[in-house]
Amino acid sequence: MEESTEGRGISRRCLLGAAGGAGAAGMAAGGLAGAAGRGWAGDDVPPLAAVGGTSVPFHGRHQVGITTPPQAYGHLVAFDLRPGAGRAAAAGLMRRWSAAAEAMTAGRPPAGDDQIALDAGPSSLTVTFGFGRSFFAKTDLGDRMPAALVPMPPFPGDALDHFRSGGDLWIQIGADDPLVAVHATRILHKAASGTAAMRWQMNGFNRARGATDRPRTVRNLMGQLDGTNNPHPFAPGFDAEIFAADTTGPHAWMNGGSYAVVRRIRMLLDTWEKLPVDRQEQVIGRRKDTGAPLSGGTETTPVNLAAVRPDGALAIPGDAHIRVAAPASNGGATLLRRGFSYYDGPRPDGAPDAGLLFIAWQADPTTGFIQVQRKLAGADGLTRFLRHESSAIFAVPGGAASGSYVGQALLES
Amino acid sequence: MEESTEGRGISRRCLLGAAGGAGAAGMAAGGLAGAAGRGWAGDDVPPLAAVGGTSVPFHGRHQVGITTPPQAYGHLVAFDLRPGAGRAAAAGLMRRWSAAAEAMTAGRPPAGDDQIALDAGPSSLTVTFGFGRSFFAKTDLGDRMPAALVPMPPFPGDALDHFRSGGDLWIQIGADDPLVAVHATRILHKAASGTAAMRWQMNGFNRARGATDRPRTVRNLMGQLDGTNNPHPFAPGFDAEIFAADTTGPHAWMNGGSYAVVRRIRMLLDTWEKLPVDRQEQVIGRRKDTGAPLSGGTETTPVNLAAVRPDGALAIPGDAHIRVAAPASNGGATLLRRGFSYYDGPRPDGAPDAGLLFIAWQADPTTGFIQVQRKLAGADGLTRFLRHESSAIFAVPGGAASGSYVGQALLES
Ligand code: HEM
Ligand code: HEM
Repeated sequence: MEESTEGRGISRRCLLGAAGGAGAAGMAAGGLAGAAGRGWAGDDVPPLAAVGGTSVPFHGRHQVGITTPPQAYGHLVAFDLRPGAGRAAAAGLMRRWSAAAEAMTAGRPPAGDDQIALDAGPSSLTVTFGFGRSFFAKTDLGDRMPAALVPMPPFPGDALDHFRSGGDLWIQIGADDPLVAVHATRILHKAASGTAAMRWQMNGFNRARGATDRPRTVRNLMGQLDGTNNPHPFAPGFDAEIFAADTTGPHAWMNGGSYAVVRRIRMLLDTWEKLPVDRQEQVIGRRKDTGAPLSGGTETTPVNLAAVRPDGALAIPGDAHIRVAAPASNGGATLLRRGFSYYDGPRPDGAPDAGLLFIAWQADPTTGFIQVQRKLAGADGLTRFLRHESSAIFAVPGGAASGSYVGQALLES
Repeated sequence: MEESTEGRGISRRCLLGAAGGAGAAGMAAGGLAGAAGRGWAGDDVPPLAAVGGTSVPFHGRHQVGITTPPQAYGHLVAFDLRPGAGRAAAAGLMRRWSAAAEAMTAGRPPAGDDQIALDAGPSSLTVTFGFGRSFFAKTDLGDRMPAALVPMPPFPGDALDHFRSGGDLWIQIGADDPLVAVHATRILHKAASGTAAMRWQMNGFNRARGATDRPRTVRNLMGQLDGTNNPHPFAPGFDAEIFAADTTGPHAWMNGGSYAVVRRIRMLLDTWEKLPVDRQEQVIGRRKDTGAPLSGGTETTPVNLAAVRPDGALAIPGDAHIRVAAPASNGGATLLRRGFSYYDGPRPDGAPDAGLLFIAWQADPTTGFIQVQRKLAGADGLTRFLRHESSAIFAVPGGAASGSYVGQALLES
């Protein structure tokens, strides 16, 4: 496996929201030779085995899995510390978890390997760790809890399942190969044994690499291109909006970190799919097929919220999701959305238990997710097709330097 | 997208049990240009976009999804006819389902599309339909039910969940892209509306295409290479062992068909993983890393059940899974195993709800799965690490000719 961290031509759509993309921030691809082929293969398409050969370096200023392009397969898992497990036990756990994550993201077997992923490459595996509010009390670190890690307020329409919400510890696992993702989840689960018990697990997915003719924004289960207008990691202001501000003192352990808000949002697909496509497009404010804003242009054309149609009506309706959610409507509130779809089978009422494992990243949840969701819950036309069924918020520390582990600056100083 | 049905060099390991394989019986690849790359890319590696561009023709003598190489993502879904839905309603449903499956496997949007898979290629999508025993009574076709579709006898150790077992109708959906697989499942669910209700759904996976450096047999969640000694579709006798014998008369509708036995088999991973690797290898009779039989050689070396070690003991122990399951131990009983792994989160006892969605294909379940499982339940060393938690058996008719639908010869004559 070849590793390289050279940047390549990167577009916003390639970076975020495209599962089929080749190069991206912090990714190293195992092979980049052009591949000829008619119709479905373009010049910039890496060879197939690059799916396995691509690795995302574990160490760095930020944890991986935030600006990494969303992988095809994801697990979100939350753990609770066992009774009696305090700061020392938690430190040992984070050390074990980081060591296992570092090995697996580099394609090496972790300690006590079960060989599930033995002959696969790392397949863009990322492992991201976070701490919930309850973690700080249990580890006697209440004074180190950052103010930004607020309790999540209730929102109108919430239908939350307590047992699938919250958690002392959170891991986000993503990979382009399902066995690699499951292997990581299983290894980390075992490494927690004795210290923490799994509270919940959610399985999700995006497009497989190479399923489209070229890198494209992924579709969600409502059929929309989802991720188009995410902030761009190389845009000015991105770091300030998404990553916690550098500081000294008791919260310096969050330098390079971010806050993740996790919501399991079920889609009321049976109702949604009864709407004609043009109504669906009004609800979002974008075309369903191309993702172009209803103010005109193509998917990447900037949204014009002021545009009016010949009949005088707003091109993007007053309750359109992209209007109500836009930074312009929320005092500049910006969040990075990087989720996974889920599709878990029929509910007792016959409807599919399906939707979005929504993950929002921001420097401050109060001026990020909470600000936007307050607005959406009241004014967004999409709301009536959704049910928020679980909720969690985590402080995600900065990345570990080589030789140290994630959270060490919190747990050992 | 380019279609071609030309055969290419095909090895047993490439055909069955390898998720990363390129060519295979009945598959048409969208691009085959060699791709250079170091370490992770070989000469026979198709370009990345071939993941999307590969299609499996829906029409033919056999249904697809039997000898098709196992895809990365799979859904198994069972339906029950609604009260009052008889033969005519079932015929209409099979017609709608076949039309949708034909469109989607060719990469075309089905009627009433929701656009979830809009810009993806067919991604090796296969859709396979089967009828359970209860289907025949409800459609007044009891005299057309083949004798081979026997009730599944109970086996020692069975721990079956009635609500996840059985079903009037069954669909197996597989694709190398998760959105393509979910899209097909959703569309077929909607097309059943009014006629049949979903009884259960199970989600599984195998390796993503391109996750390994070359096509390899897939690993299961015990970490073993699984599928090595499957019968080879081009071997003499394969058709007679796997596909129903041609006949005239009331069961002629099964010509070109096969019988699927579906078992959700949970793995007791916490117990299994406590065994040292050499003990795990004794339980199966093969090496865990290479898959080579303990009688020596490499993964593809024929098993020598008579081989003895220097200490006089059998190289492959008396209770080793591959000894007890082998055709030689079961009067020649042969089945084609083509399953998906599943990993659904923690159970109330903390153990993962994980294992194998085992699917066995054979011309006659009595001399196939039932014969072998009777033997295994008593004598197989692997049994104590497994729980069979659901069971179903389906008659899977032959493929539809162009212009007709699957099951038409049963439902319209
Ligand atoms: C299942 C639930 C949701 C669905 C299906 C959904 C779908 C979409 C779609 C299709 C777009 C347009 C394409 C894009 O820019 O990505 C979009 C944009 C956006 N969504 Fe959502 N969304 C959901 C929930 C949320 C939630 C809970 C929030 C935040 C609280 C949110 C915030 C945003 C933002 C900030 C934008 C970009 C608006 C802009 O500036 O253009 N979305 N969403
Ligand atoms: C979770 C449950 C199971 C696991 C993990 C498992 C695993 C394996 C493994 C690792 C092999 C060796 C590699 C290969 O040839 O594929 C194998 C072979 C085989 N298994 Fe299983 N198996 C399971 C259940 C079953 C069941 C229920 C049956 C049939 C009732 C079965 C029938 C066979 C047969 C016929 C072979 C080939 C034996 C030979 O001729 O070499 N297996 N299995």
